[in-house]
Amino acid sequence: MSAAKRRYLPERMMDEASYLSGYADGEGCFCVTFNKSRRHKFGWDIRPSFSVSQNRDRAEVLYMFQKYFGCGTIRPDRSDKTLKYEIRGVTELATKVIPHFEKYPLLSSKRKDFESFAAIVKIMNEGGHLNKDGFEKIIQFADGLNAGSKKKYVRRQIKV
Amino acid sequence: MSAAKRRYLPERMMDEASYLSGYADGEGCFCVTFNKSRRHKFGWDIRPSFSVSQNRDRAEVLYMFQKYFGCGTIRPDRSDKTLKYEIRGVTELATKVIPHFEKYPLLSSKRKDFESFAAIVKIMNEGGHLNKDGFEKIIQFADGLNAGSKKKYVRRQIKV
Repeated sequence: MSAAKRRYLPERMMDEASYLSGYADGEGCFCVTFNKSRRHKFGWDIRPSFSVSQNRDRAEVLYMFQKYFGCGTIRPDRSDKTLKYEIRGVTELATKVIPHFEKYPLLSSKRKDFESFAAIVKIMNEGGHLNKDGFEKIIQFADGLNAGSKKKYVRRQIKV
Repeated sequence: MSAAKRRYLPERMMDEASYLSGYADGEGCFCVTFNKSRRHKFGWDIRPSFSVSQNRDRAEVLYMFQKYFGCGTIRPDRSDKTLKYEIRGVTELATKVIPHFEKYPLLSSKRKDFESFAAIVKIMNEGGHLNKDGFEKIIQFADGLNAGSKKKYVRRQIKV
């Protein structure tokens, strides 16, 4: 099913797309990690991901996300009590996840995380991470993403 | 605004009611506590509540819930990093919260918690907790609610 297609669940007033955005506002994560790598330009492997975690005994909504986006994996998280739905492919993030959350936006301040995340994915989807300007922009957007977490070291450590 | 009224957010495809149900599926709690009390019939004060907690820095959706239901309080949770939106009034639970989640149902197995919770609130809203039959039914429904938590002592401890 296309992520962009609006769908009402049978015999319900419920709108699935809005429901999933509400769920993701609470439980979703828009994350970008940087791993040192000799194989990647400028020495860093940049990995954006969208994920949603939930206890194994009520993971139904993770399968709804997977069906809705038509991609992504569901696997046990590091803790053995939870499952994590995750999309890591830049193309899928750029063509499915980002258009969804632009159309059905997060209504909490987590939206700022999404916006930084979306900017990074769009640069990467156009190959911008392979030139200096694009790479520097990614570092700037990543600095605003997940502020306060241990990822904050990124901007200070990474030099182009 | 009536909780039952469907509303599209301005210039968006988003359906607010579905969004809030999705959010509550992840972050909401349908809870019933039992406190010993000499003032209450059968020696127990039964307190149902619907609550949603969130970090203080992205609590916008708690205020959306409050506006949507037109009742409930928002206050700091025991942890000082979070805020909790809570509705404890039986009338409000019976006339606003339960009709909402019947129309825009939870799609994970948390729905079972909601159904036990709704059964208890409906009994209490009709005064059924003041007679032996109703009180016993409440204990039975509470036994299925939040199974596995410390509340599980309830059925063994409470005798009518």
